[in-house]
Amino acid sequence: MAELPDLHGSAITQFIEVGGNKYAYRIFGKETGLPLVFLHHFTATIDDWDPLVTNGLAQHFKVVLLDNKGIGASEGQAPDNVKGMADDATAVIGALGFTKVNLLGFSLGGFVAQQIALDSPELVNRLILAATSPKGGEGISNLPNIMNEAFATAPEDPRLFLFYSKSSESIARGRQSLARVKKRKENRVPPTSMPSIQAQVKSILGWAAENKNVYDELSRIKQPSLVVNGNNDIMFPTINSYTLFQHLPNARLSLYSDSGHGAIYQYADRFVKEAADFLETI
Amino acid sequence: MAELPDLHGSAITQFIEVGGNKYAYRIFGKETGLPLVFLHHFTATIDDWDPLVTNGLAQHFKVVLLDNKGIGASEGQAPDNVKGMADDATAVIGALGFTKVNLLGFSLGGFVAQQIALDSPELVNRLILAATSPKGGEGISNLPNIMNEAFATAPEDPRLFLFYSKSSESIARGRQSLARVKKRKENRVPPTSMPSIQAQVKSILGWAAENKNVYDELSRIKQPSLVVNGNNDIMFPTINSYTLFQHLPNARLSLYSDSGHGAIYQYADRFVKEAADFLETI
Repeated sequence: MAELPDLHGSAITQFIEVGGNKYAYRIFGKETGLPLVFLHHFTATIDDWDPLVTNGLAQHFKVVLLDNKGIGASEGQAPDNVKGMADDATAVIGALGFTKVNLLGFSLGGFVAQQIALDSPELVNRLILAATSPKGGEGISNLPNIMNEAFATAPEDPRLFLFYSKSSESIARGRQSLARVKKRKENRVPPTSMPSIQAQVKSILGWAAENKNVYDELSRIKQPSLVVNGNNDIMFPTINSYTLFQHLPNARLSLYSDSGHGAIYQYADRFVKEAADFLETI
Repeated sequence: MAELPDLHGSAITQFIEVGGNKYAYRIFGKETGLPLVFLHHFTATIDDWDPLVTNGLAQHFKVVLLDNKGIGASEGQAPDNVKGMADDATAVIGALGFTKVNLLGFSLGGFVAQQIALDSPELVNRLILAATSPKGGEGISNLPNIMNEAFATAPEDPRLFLFYSKSSESIARGRQSLARVKKRKENRVPPTSMPSIQAQVKSILGWAAENKNVYDELSRIKQPSLVVNGNNDIMFPTINSYTLFQHLPNARLSLYSDSGHGAIYQYADRFVKEAADFLETI
């Protein structure tokens, strides 16, 4: 694949004030067409997206990276529930002037994307739900143990433990992805604060504990959805992606081999191709 | 999509004698590169492939459609076990001079493809396993009841009941696929005989009843594999595709919305793109 222009690496960080809170975002890529709004995983900021994914999708779409409240360079404190996160993101998307968007939700960002689609269906054109789960998903409440194990066993970067399989190939691709993530040196945003991280954990565990009308809710998300994951996601177990696919009325499922939570980074080229193809389908 | 050359509609039926039995086959498409051998579903002959799939893949590969022993214009009586079917197909592939092939196994053909990969790993480059199941799959022994229901409720063509969802969109696409399948008028092969159909049922139920070392066997199929199906396959329930994916060491899974056993026909364009992309990956 030819080298892509590194729009990710040079995009300026912009700010918008919504409801008295300043939010950080970056926009790059195509100037026309529906924006593709990226909603990120637990702890991650706009600097933590793999540039191979953002630059790849920027060839096709206007890419919008957003730090939600209390994340990275965005002011405030992250809400301790997904509904609050969805409300914040929806308000920012509206304040940016967008009335219809595609959403790419990764992990916790996938919870937020589902909630936005439920609460503001008119705002959402299509959904990409990567390494995520419906409410009440299996094995998600085990997350604190998995995090502890990651910090205990992966000195280099916990994502190498959490996002990849145990194979040397998967780990090598994880290292490559992390190198890409860390390549941008200028004007990085601060890491997410500990209180916001704690609120995110509470949000994730709250989502996992919900068990009322879960499938009814999913049946109301009519947008075409692409559900993607690795074959062995140890954070939000892969069976949850299958369940999500089975209960969304208009979804397709794509699962990759020898991979985990970070499958869209491990197979960034393939994912970009698949996501662009999905979003460009009339 | 531009109209494809209808190689499927004009391909001559050829015959080859192997082990004293005459087998019918058709070859068309690219002259070079690894052949893509199509292994068909319960009762189906070389005339029952959807030309949108065969013509589409013929743009990329040398397509080989094969009627196994006792099917269509091939002489003899179908074996009553998958192992026997795999032995026959392997012998014919060898007699045609092919030492390495890609296999596309649809339903029962997917059982045969798995068995060939197990018994003759050196022959198989990559596998596409559509609407199929590992040995001992869930719900497969219910097939006779499903067949009875199909014949009782679908006067037009049982495949409209068996291969598609209950939505008007899926049924409409099923009708379009059947019209394509029936378009070729010249030199069609005879339908499969009742004794061979009975042997196929016995093969399917035998496969479903196997429960020893199933996952060990799958772990030995190292070839890259693409597992595809609809979200609600009532013949070989979709969860079997997930299980197959999870136990093959190098597989990817692609499941389509609002579809069943015939998903690769319902979404023929998408499937052709995905299959070609998969087979062409280095």
